[in-house]
Amino acid sequence: MAPKYAPSLRSRLAPFLLFLQIGFIAVYYFYVEVDNNGNGIIFRNFYPVFQDLNVMVFLGFGFLSTFLVRYGFSGSGFNLLIAVIAIQWAFILDGFESWYYRGKIWIDLRSLVVAEICTASVLISIGAVQGKTNPVHLTIMALMEVFGFVLNEWLLRTLLPVQHLNFILVLHIFGAFFGLVLTWILYRKESQQGFEKEKFDCKTGLFSMLGTLFLWMFWPSFNSILMERSFPERRLWAVCSTYLALAVSAVGSFAVSTLSSPKGEINPTHFQSCILAGGVAVGVSMPVIRYPWEAMTIGLAAAAVSTVGFRYLTKHMLFAFGCHDTCRVLSVHGLPGLLGWLIHLLLQIQQSDDRTIAIRFGVFHICVLLITIAVSLTMGIITGVLLKWDIWRPPQDKKCFDDQTFWKFEHLAIRK
Amino acid sequence: MAPKYAPSLRSRLAPFLLFLQIGFIAVYYFYVEVDNNGNGIIFRNFYPVFQDLNVMVFLGFGFLSTFLVRYGFSGSGFNLLIAVIAIQWAFILDGFESWYYRGKIWIDLRSLVVAEICTASVLISIGAVQGKTNPVHLTIMALMEVFGFVLNEWLLRTLLPVQHLNFILVLHIFGAFFGLVLTWILYRKESQQGFEKEKFDCKTGLFSMLGTLFLWMFWPSFNSILMERSFPERRLWAVCSTYLALAVSAVGSFAVSTLSSPKGEINPTHFQSCILAGGVAVGVSMPVIRYPWEAMTIGLAAAAVSTVGFRYLTKHMLFAFGCHDTCRVLSVHGLPGLLGWLIHLLLQIQQSDDRTIAIRFGVFHICVLLITIAVSLTMGIITGVLLKWDIWRPPQDKKCFDDQTFWKFEHLAIRK
Amino acid sequence: MAPKYAPSLRSRLAPFLLFLQIGFIAVYYFYVEVDNNGNGIIFRNFYPVFQDLNVMVFLGFGFLSTFLVRYGFSGSGFNLLIAVIAIQWAFILDGFESWYYRGKIWIDLRSLVVAEICTASVLISIGAVQGKTNPVHLTIMALMEVFGFVLNEWLLRTLLPVQHLNFILVLHIFGAFFGLVLTWILYRKESQQGFEKEKFDCKTGLFSMLGTLFLWMFWPSFNSILMERSFPERRLWAVCSTYLALAVSAVGSFAVSTLSSPKGEINPTHFQSCILAGGVAVGVSMPVIRYPWEAMTIGLAAAAVSTVGFRYLTKHMLFAFGCHDTCRVLSVHGLPGLLGWLIHLLLQIQQSDDRTIAIRFGVFHICVLLITIAVSLTMGIITGVLLKWDIWRPPQDKKCFDDQTFWKFEHLAIRK
Repeated sequence: MAPKYAPSLRSRLAPFLLFLQIGFIAVYYFYVEVDNNGNGIIFRNFYPVFQDLNVMVFLGFGFLSTFLVRYGFSGSGFNLLIAVIAIQWAFILDGFESWYYRGKIWIDLRSLVVAEICTASVLISIGAVQGKTNPVHLTIMALMEVFGFVLNEWLLRTLLPVQHLNFILVLHIFGAFFGLVLTWILYRKESQQGFEKEKFDCKTGLFSMLGTLFLWMFWPSFNSILMERSFPERRLWAVCSTYLALAVSAVGSFAVSTLSSPKGEINPTHFQSCILAGGVAVGVSMPVIRYPWEAMTIGLAAAAVSTVGFRYLTKHMLFAFGCHDTCRVLSVHGLPGLLGWLIHLLLQIQQSDDRTIAIRFGVFHICVLLITIAVSLTMGIITGVLLKWDIWRPPQDKKCFDDQTFWKFEHLAIRK
Repeated sequence: MAPKYAPSLRSRLAPFLLFLQIGFIAVYYFYVEVDNNGNGIIFRNFYPVFQDLNVMVFLGFGFLSTFLVRYGFSGSGFNLLIAVIAIQWAFILDGFESWYYRGKIWIDLRSLVVAEICTASVLISIGAVQGKTNPVHLTIMALMEVFGFVLNEWLLRTLLPVQHLNFILVLHIFGAFFGLVLTWILYRKESQQGFEKEKFDCKTGLFSMLGTLFLWMFWPSFNSILMERSFPERRLWAVCSTYLALAVSAVGSFAVSTLSSPKGEINPTHFQSCILAGGVAVGVSMPVIRYPWEAMTIGLAAAAVSTVGFRYLTKHMLFAFGCHDTCRVLSVHGLPGLLGWLIHLLLQIQQSDDRTIAIRFGVFHICVLLITIAVSLTMGIITGVLLKWDIWRPPQDKKCFDDQTFWKFEHLAIRK
Repeated sequence: MAPKYAPSLRSRLAPFLLFLQIGFIAVYYFYVEVDNNGNGIIFRNFYPVFQDLNVMVFLGFGFLSTFLVRYGFSGSGFNLLIAVIAIQWAFILDGFESWYYRGKIWIDLRSLVVAEICTASVLISIGAVQGKTNPVHLTIMALMEVFGFVLNEWLLRTLLPVQHLNFILVLHIFGAFFGLVLTWILYRKESQQGFEKEKFDCKTGLFSMLGTLFLWMFWPSFNSILMERSFPERRLWAVCSTYLALAVSAVGSFAVSTLSSPKGEINPTHFQSCILAGGVAVGVSMPVIRYPWEAMTIGLAAAAVSTVGFRYLTKHMLFAFGCHDTCRVLSVHGLPGLLGWLIHLLLQIQQSDDRTIAIRFGVFHICVLLITIAVSLTMGIITGVLLKWDIWRPPQDKKCFDDQTFWKFEHLAIRK
């Protein structure tokens, strides 16, 4: 029996996607050209790291949510769909300034990377609402969030004297808070009893392990990719410190996950998510880290905060605030991001000799966080209210977390 | 109970493989040397892209056919086996000219890449006969097809004033038509009723998703890898346009797959295959694409053609022509390749100012296609007739699409 | 019901890991700094290969042991945990000399690579005791083995006039013998009857295939990574010869596996392990290989030796010596390593014109092997005796090879 709302995919999603895609092509038709002045050497140095980022965005984030027993295809397939829409859209919005002043947007690897980083933020948010939404929801959400992300970037650039925007900070904080407020608005009563199909599966859990490993291994590329131009010597540093922070983070999350379990066992979902916390925190506080041990300490602290948050906060969030966070983005991206922000603040103040500069930096740094959170929450609320609308036909409670709602697994052999 | 023909692996495949392998080593002994003059910088720039290609050939193509419920090991294992045989053989044949004039064949990364691209063509063809053949069939087929591919290349170079052979065009068209004619000749009556074990499985389907994703992510490397030497600035262009075409292709195949499904669900096999169509079409028409929107339009058209072909043509091909195409290579490589060829023709004519040159190019371009298809079909028929021979002991109908025909899954623990 | 010894993870592993990690951070605090003089160009050339190595160490070795039906999470998770501990520890020990003379250890990509190669040796050894140990065992073993590896390196450097240490040789021989002697000491009677859960599974076996493929594809990076500095032109050579040896090795292991099977079927575990043998042997004998055919012959010989060893020696090792080798490290790393060593010896003697130099080299080369094996066995015995101690609470026989001993797969949905 087909689920009631399944035809919505055909009557709503397909025309919407085609319309959107043709719109994008039209915009590209008028305004986008390839930057042929791109230096060949820069391209060659950039390309392998660009491919690492691709693996993270399309494969890493995609397979992260395959731990759900029946949600592997939706997890990885919708991730791909949303990512390619968000990249095209982010590229257009990022190029707005260039269009405004020069009438054209120039495409090169760097602009694709910036668009992908913005997309990563969307993929983080999707983690929070995974399983309780349909692809129409996710597409609208992606469009809104990319707009919010670019708006936030523009606000930070305009209101504050930011020279090098800390994309990594904005990315994690913006994505996590956007996702959280969205899942809070889209709250369903059934979350209290638990969704029937929201369970971990040993077999597909290994796919999730694979996604996590790719994210974990290529995180140094992620944290160092935008450092190329301004400070070439900083890239080695970013790679080494991210690498060490991730290593310590893996040990830390293993230990803390064991400590926080009543019978001393390891929870694979804790482990898979929290080994990434070190990379998040160290990426956010990168500009002020000077020694390997600082990166390692941050990694350990982030793993501890993240694992404890995963263990105790998730339940609390659900019952106290009605906020059902499927992939626990609060613990994986939100808390480590805030921790990294705090460490950045403290270390910067401690490192500066001049008190005035320290205070100025502090005010500035707090403003960055507040603006980012404010824009994130605002856009999240607007998007949430929009998605509450019944016209998008959200999946019924018992059809949540189920591939068969959207995918048809047919017998391949053709019979007469 | 062991299947009847299983001993053929021991009595036929193993001696054949060893004989072949020792023959290859003997040829390499006499004629192959490493090119030590290779510039270090070229090597370093080339190496990461070479590894991307490796991942596509061995992992991407290998895992593409794991969607069959019981064919994961054969799909990925035989893919590896055939690929390494085809690469060694292609390298020898590609070096024939060098041997003829200079008495030696020089090996470097570039020659390995050319051999791998030729191999990719074999792996495409295998997709059409997957599950209905044994490894002896596949090995013979690989030897014949590589020979045909190199022959075709030589014919094009000799008969037509080709300067830069469009490997990408030849690869997809040659591979698809070779595979189709082969599966047409190897037709079995049981195909009409459908093979018992030819079905999609949700769990192993995720492996197929993984293979698809690796192909999808690294396709820009594939389309740009042979552009290094002649036009360095074209590589960035090839990467960007392939990237955009693939992105649009993903959205397009999602939308069209939903539209063409009676209940508006997405078919994962459609999705997995057709997101690649944009990369195929844009690769074939790369030389004439000048703007991003052109690449995107081609991507959308290719996805639509491919998905529609997948949905409606597969059945028709089977019942009208008796052509059972396991991995639907017609829709995934054949149709998008032809579409790309057509777009190349149209755009080239439209772009050229001089009418004489345009007509000359048109004739030339049509000849390339016709020669390629002719050689492909001829070699396919010869190979098919050869493989029809009962001496190779084809698997019985009910043993098709089954790993247990060739692989032994034993209890690992050794008992006294 | 929780297994008896499970609380040991909480009461023993977690404090131990945290203590160790904080100790490492303290050492890094005092002595480790980033090498900011690192040349940017070297970094960029090195980085993609470094990432290949990462994929091999964390993903390749990690997923290699997922063929065990219920051991996927332990296989990949513990692999990650042990690898990050071993890398941090290896980095400290490797930097001992630098600390002694200059008071500081300098970290850069090259030092991370050396630490990862040392770690690979540990991961090889773990293959032998996989499934019969708990993470506390593995951690202690990693600490001891890294110490032994660095000690062996120091002995070779001090006792013999080694200029460029053959890391690849030491790595495979040291790892394999260490693992073998350890599993011999940790012998359990139940091995004779076979462990209940030590069986191959078709579904998770594909994950193992994936791990193998990543190892196989990136092995050229592994064999060439340390050749950068001394002989830039040797890297291309190392890549080509490893590539060819691996290709031949795949064909060879396929053929020999079929020949050695009673019913002519292919054993997936043979196939997965033995295709790597060519890479091992050719890596060890790299310095004397001059022609592609030599690399290919070595690949074929290694595949044959490895497959035959896998088929006949494993049983013999268990019943004659009481040495239960889970991942057959003897056949995969030990025998091909010895073969490569022997070929290195023979070719070097044959190539040298001067008899005195040949004899001198021979003696020297035999000494390298003997010292490595001696240190490996000694450290293995010490570690084994240490691990025999009941305080570490080894898993009960019937809990061996079972994820549920250490991991908790809970229903994710939170219920009130």
